[in-house]
Amino acid sequence: MAPISDVIFVGNKPPMNYVLAIITAFSSGNTKEITLKARGKAITTAVDVAEITRSRFLKDLKLGKIAIGTAEMPPREGENRSRMVSTIEITLSKAKE
Amino acid sequence: MAPISDVIFVGNKPPMNYVLAIITAFSSGNTKEITLKARGKAITTAVDVAEITRSRFLKDLKLGKIAIGTAEMPPREGENRSRMVSTIEITLSKAKE
Repeated sequence: MAPISDVIFVGNKPPMNYVLAIITAFSSGNTKEITLKARGKAITTAVDVAEITRSRFLKDLKLGKIAIGTAEMPPREGENRSRMVSTIEITLSKAKE
Repeated sequence: MAPISDVIFVGNKPPMNYVLAIITAFSSGNTKEITLKARGKAITTAVDVAEITRSRFLKDLKLGKIAIGTAEMPPREGENRSRMVSTIEITLSKAKE
């Protein structure tokens, strides 16, 4: 079977929720690579999640590509301009066995 | 003269303060590369700063290496454990003329 590449969207929950999601995905066996995606204030959480996972739980995880970018969000109610938010993508991959 | 590499620490000020610091440093002439460093909640600000600078002001800037890591901070008053905070480093460089 081809290696599976998973995406986890990091939002406003506590970092450990996402850390557990990563551990679960990798331990299912087929997932070789996970990309964390976050925007706005959750960018800090995404970095925390990557660091906690690597330093405390899955010490053989490799930090792959880190990309930043900008996304356009629809305007809030009562506003008429769309907002720009920053985004981040962090790729974590399992070392080959 | 050798190309100068500058470091700007991103903290809790508004993003535009740091954007201006970058523009000033690059327009001084000798700086070819700037590394933004931030930790904790300022990580989001650092990504915003890099994105705003590239999309609105210095459109020929190249996004270089992005690195994340963990730093140990001394314990807060009244606590006795040191805290771990995530860090980010984003390198921006001027395209060669």
